[in-house]
Amino acid sequence: MIKERMTMTQQILVKHAAREEIEVGQIIEVDVDMVLGNDITTPVAIESFLKTSVIDVFDKSKISIVPDHFSPNKDIKSAEQCKKVREFAKRFDIDNYFELGQMGIEHALLPEKGLIKPSEIIIGADSHTCTFGALNAFSTGIGSTDMGVAMATGRIWFKVPSAIKVNIIGKPQKWVSGKDVILNLIGKIGVSGANYKSLEFYGDGLKYLSIDDRFTITNMVIEAGAKNGIFPFDEITKAYLDEHCDKKYEITYPNENAEFESEITIDLSKLKLTVAFPHLPENTHEIDEINEKIKVDQVMIGSCTNGRISDLQAAYKILKGKKINPSLRVIIIPATQKIYLDALKNGYIEEFIKAGAIVSTPTCGPCLGGHMGVLAKDEVCISTTNRNFVGRMGHVESKVYLASPSVAAATAIKGYIVHPNEVL
Amino acid sequence: MIKERMTMTQQILVKHAAREEIEVGQIIEVDVDMVLGNDITTPVAIESFLKTSVIDVFDKSKISIVPDHFSPNKDIKSAEQCKKVREFAKRFDIDNYFELGQMGIEHALLPEKGLIKPSEIIIGADSHTCTFGALNAFSTGIGSTDMGVAMATGRIWFKVPSAIKVNIIGKPQKWVSGKDVILNLIGKIGVSGANYKSLEFYGDGLKYLSIDDRFTITNMVIEAGAKNGIFPFDEITKAYLDEHCDKKYEITYPNENAEFESEITIDLSKLKLTVAFPHLPENTHEIDEINEKIKVDQVMIGSCTNGRISDLQAAYKILKGKKINPSLRVIIIPATQKIYLDALKNGYIEEFIKAGAIVSTPTCGPCLGGHMGVLAKDEVCISTTNRNFVGRMGHVESKVYLASPSVAAATAIKGYIVHPNEVL
Repeated sequence: MIKERMTMTQQILVKHAAREEIEVGQIIEVDVDMVLGNDITTPVAIESFLKTSVIDVFDKSKISIVPDHFSPNKDIKSAEQCKKVREFAKRFDIDNYFELGQMGIEHALLPEKGLIKPSEIIIGADSHTCTFGALNAFSTGIGSTDMGVAMATGRIWFKVPSAIKVNIIGKPQKWVSGKDVILNLIGKIGVSGANYKSLEFYGDGLKYLSIDDRFTITNMVIEAGAKNGIFPFDEITKAYLDEHCDKKYEITYPNENAEFESEITIDLSKLKLTVAFPHLPENTHEIDEINEKIKVDQVMIGSCTNGRISDLQAAYKILKGKKINPSLRVIIIPATQKIYLDALKNGYIEEFIKAGAIVSTPTCGPCLGGHMGVLAKDEVCISTTNRNFVGRMGHVESKVYLASPSVAAATAIKGYIVHPNEVL
Repeated sequence: MIKERMTMTQQILVKHAAREEIEVGQIIEVDVDMVLGNDITTPVAIESFLKTSVIDVFDKSKISIVPDHFSPNKDIKSAEQCKKVREFAKRFDIDNYFELGQMGIEHALLPEKGLIKPSEIIIGADSHTCTFGALNAFSTGIGSTDMGVAMATGRIWFKVPSAIKVNIIGKPQKWVSGKDVILNLIGKIGVSGANYKSLEFYGDGLKYLSIDDRFTITNMVIEAGAKNGIFPFDEITKAYLDEHCDKKYEITYPNENAEFESEITIDLSKLKLTVAFPHLPENTHEIDEINEKIKVDQVMIGSCTNGRISDLQAAYKILKGKKINPSLRVIIIPATQKIYLDALKNGYIEEFIKAGAIVSTPTCGPCLGGHMGVLAKDEVCISTTNRNFVGRMGHVESKVYLASPSVAAATAIKGYIVHPNEVL
């Protein structure tokens, strides 16, 4: 394939493979710019790293370790896992090991710390590593053993993906957010709709999607099976990088003649608030079409999908001056310490507490049924997270509805799933 | 024994037994004013309650249920336990069931909610129920099955305890707090030194002990084996009750001729900051006498012992404008939602985050190795909690040092156990 026909993803891959040409489906080896792991996957990766013949990591500045899943440690086992990664980070003098207190959810933390740049390849032993595509990078989840070998070699192989072009047009109505865009897309194409493909986002509507909206969208491309998701670089990307990253970077511009396997259009102006019903993210319903009163026991606002400052702001706008419904409990988790601090300074946290919510220190916790809000049998949760699989947040007979922070917050007031307009 | 010779504890017991006289060692049955349980003990108590022949609780206004230990739920099992107590509370229309978001650590929460009054008998299926003695009440921990029966009958039996008189004299030096008083006392008499006895606090020095200091002291009387601890009513008690309790109450005044089994004097002016070394609270050392650098991995500030607003203030004074030592992690847990909110409004939480600590939503969590900061093998923690038994906060080969919030905060800066003067 000539370069002029390559997608953004393929352009990044070909450059990192030090080749002139690549073909869809071809296996290539690439250099990586960042290898990421957490407290669940890194212990496994360490074992795999130690089995290689190398005596040091390939580049201590290109490894990030974020113990965000079961920390603050929920039990002895998780404490041992965190200890193992802490000692590994110390032994190999890893630049980007983040201790409790300096930390946050990995996919929110790395961009915030300026560790993600356009045109880079970032691999992470966590499926939601695809999040960084919002910054015009190629990023994807890998296995823990792959992470171990990549820490040794700085390289990994990929099959070159084909791509689906997602045209974003129109201007969204009030309350419609990145979460509704990605849920709508997954609802359209299904959880296997983009299997091993890139989802590349284009169009005039992009200017209405904030960087946080974009992070939410790329975060969930894996829920359609995608290898990665990627946005072009624009003023919104630049503004974010100006604030968080002081390093130079290259931009990967879209080719006008790029070859796509298929194309899909999302008109933001027609998009409604969307909820994914149990037990798949593709099981989407527009909120206006929900005719039953779906009562919930727990509301969870946070995660690598929707724990950023604009997500908390959306919840704040709804919860401010109100009381949450006594029939339920509300757990709000800022994604990083910085987001927590910003939310505090903006007065959000005070209002959350006054409303009757609890605010946790940053952790992945409840999203994966880890801790900080696991569900009992028959319990129902509306969550701003990314997966509503059977048993994802606890008991196999619990249920999870996925939605945006504004829908989750409105539900917190009413006690059942509602449009924000019903409480404001 | 005639009434004039009775201790405060005995006066409260005799009145609740509807008797004129009682003798030390005698078994008596008493009416109780409050029955307390948490998410660990109440599920067991419910089973025991359901086995009684009664069809309703004795008084729905005299039962308090606070799911504070493993909530927000750390796993499915704890979620099921919380669900069980929630459903029980609903079925029997329990007035004082506290849901996540309205909650806090039980022993801090009940006084704050005005549910504890002088001269009352409060029993709780949690050993630190002795905390409420700070408010001139008789309170003590009981078993879960006792709680179940007490929920049915409103009654329980006790063996009338003898008492140790603790004379508090002198004015404390800077930084010396209630925690140092109780650690000093336990160091003197040992963990069995007050077995099944009352610890009654008297003396001119009481005026220097804030209500929070007193809660800390009575909270830990169980660590000397005491049945209960109790303070006389004074202006400090009155001020607290004026703020939190709008109900009438009777005061139990000390008898000048009360009979004590023994007497012990603590001179606050000579008291030094005190640390209990692993693995018993009696293993106390004055901080000035610690000659080695005891490095710690984790600092924990909170719990029913030291999670009140003055505790957080003490930590704030030390952490403000500083950075915690990168060799450790610091977990700060306000004891209740109100304390969290007050700490937030006072600017404490912002400074804690800036310093590099994490702030958790109220929970007992790490104190009992439950969640939110469990220790790995060989890890060392300095904690403001009440027990440093083998494996209390995690792995059996971890170590816990008990101290006041100011010592814990100073340690957070230095990385090893120090006097606050060394960092200010």
